[in-house]
Amino acid sequence: MINTIFIAGMIIFALASIYFFIAKKNSGINTAFLVSFVTLASYVLMWEGTYVAQSRAGEPIYWTRWLFYALSCSLLMLEIAKVKGITSKEKVAELIFLNVLVMLAGYLAAITFGVVKWAFFTLSAIAYLIQIAALLRIKEARSNWINAFIYFGWSVFPIVFFLAPTGLEIFGAAIAMGLYLLLDIYTKIVFNLRLKD
Amino acid sequence: MINTIFIAGMIIFALASIYFFIAKKNSGINTAFLVSFVTLASYVLMWEGTYVAQSRAGEPIYWTRWLFYALSCSLLMLEIAKVKGITSKEKVAELIFLNVLVMLAGYLAAITFGVVKWAFFTLSAIAYLIQIAALLRIKEARSNWINAFIYFGWSVFPIVFFLAPTGLEIFGAAIAMGLYLLLDIYTKIVFNLRLKD
Amino acid sequence: MINTIFIAGMIIFALASIYFFIAKKNSGINTAFLVSFVTLASYVLMWEGTYVAQSRAGEPIYWTRWLFYALSCSLLMLEIAKVKGITSKEKVAELIFLNVLVMLAGYLAAITFGVVKWAFFTLSAIAYLIQIAALLRIKEARSNWINAFIYFGWSVFPIVFFLAPTGLEIFGAAIAMGLYLLLDIYTKIVFNLRLKD
Repeated sequence: MINTIFIAGMIIFALASIYFFIAKKNSGINTAFLVSFVTLASYVLMWEGTYVAQSRAGEPIYWTRWLFYALSCSLLMLEIAKVKGITSKEKVAELIFLNVLVMLAGYLAAITFGVVKWAFFTLSAIAYLIQIAALLRIKEARSNWINAFIYFGWSVFPIVFFLAPTGLEIFGAAIAMGLYLLLDIYTKIVFNLRLKD
Repeated sequence: MINTIFIAGMIIFALASIYFFIAKKNSGINTAFLVSFVTLASYVLMWEGTYVAQSRAGEPIYWTRWLFYALSCSLLMLEIAKVKGITSKEKVAELIFLNVLVMLAGYLAAITFGVVKWAFFTLSAIAYLIQIAALLRIKEARSNWINAFIYFGWSVFPIVFFLAPTGLEIFGAAIAMGLYLLLDIYTKIVFNLRLKD
Repeated sequence: MINTIFIAGMIIFALASIYFFIAKKNSGINTAFLVSFVTLASYVLMWEGTYVAQSRAGEPIYWTRWLFYALSCSLLMLEIAKVKGITSKEKVAELIFLNVLVMLAGYLAAITFGVVKWAFFTLSAIAYLIQIAALLRIKEARSNWINAFIYFGWSVFPIVFFLAPTGLEIFGAAIAMGLYLLLDIYTKIVFNLRLKD
């Protein structure tokens, strides 16, 4: 089941990479393509299956995901900052640095246990809230729809992390991987299709 | 003893993170907060205790410290460059790249032995000297006090490294961790408090 | 034999580091020095010999090389972009991001086997082709000689990778390391000497 999800992820993000590469709109960074391309690489490595930890309940924890997110979501953050009209290079650099902290702390929460896991989960959540608060504070008509993506897309990731084998183990790795795939499609493909309009 | 030092480090840098987050002064990057926040995460991981090598004498070597410094000290370097009035983006990028090299070579010196360890220690020291020479060369009245921080703060790190279990093993890990904590407080909290004045 | 190649690499890139440090031409980033310095560190770590995987035929795979290339070749890319007259910061950032993807996918291809290895090799090659196509598309008289370096220098790396123990294992690690050393000298020393003229 988990392998089927990874294969689906590979096919979907390979097709998305090809589409966004061809459909490139302007002379800036082709973030849509690069984000899909990095996500494709991430699914290949998870499918390979070597770089996996084990939860207390014996479920696989695919910790490499969070390192790839440090790359791909930093690009998304750059794109979101642009749509939001953030022109201060310092502000954009801070948002990207915070995003790297969110993902590195998430990675550390995924590979540790007990109180340390929850300490890193808390640090990751704090960095995320600071980042998101800075983004949502910006009132910019053209970017209102982005807030919906952040609320219903980005913010569901830590909830899945919290309930999955990386956290309370309410559900197993298969459900977690399925939910992450849906979230990846929503925040990395649907988002970029919407952005092109 | 070592665990007590790590717990002290966590408490101190958690409080410093909260203080610098609230006391934010301007619209630029809140480096003071981010540096304390990264250092807090570093202490949590050292306290966790899994990612540790062993010295020839059987002392623990907390090598993750140097990877976190690559993040936190790059931010400090950005801040120091600003106070020093370095406006060339190329120069700032070079200083930050050198800082990453200092920390990566320090990390490699920490996890290797014998002649290779000393080779990486030398490479780290050379990158550090180039970086510091570039900084100290800049005559800027407002920044004279920073030179003291660099001389008495930053430059003590490699001396501790040299004498600690990462180097000649003149003293053990407990003393090394205590000295590093004092240096962390001096270069990451006292420095940023002084900077706000 | 392999150790002799690594020692030769250390000596050559130590001398190159010293030369480029002294012969620094202008006030920009001293990329020539930094690239040689990072390559020196890379040879020290390969010579150390711990961080090595094993190919199917039992040959050593020095995977750390590709992580150091992510640092050094990003600097080279910055320099090439400058000579090519690329002024758009977004374009330069995209080229460097692509270069990091090339090297990370190369690293993942080096440490995996079978279909996954070839998947990462393909991803690395695609990122490389996109990067190179963007560079070669730029018609700029002063930079025509750079295209020769890219064709005969950079593009031979993936061919060696393909035939070496990281790929089809047509030849062994000693020949691969010898070829990589020649390529390193050509693309990192000869290139930068030519650039200074």
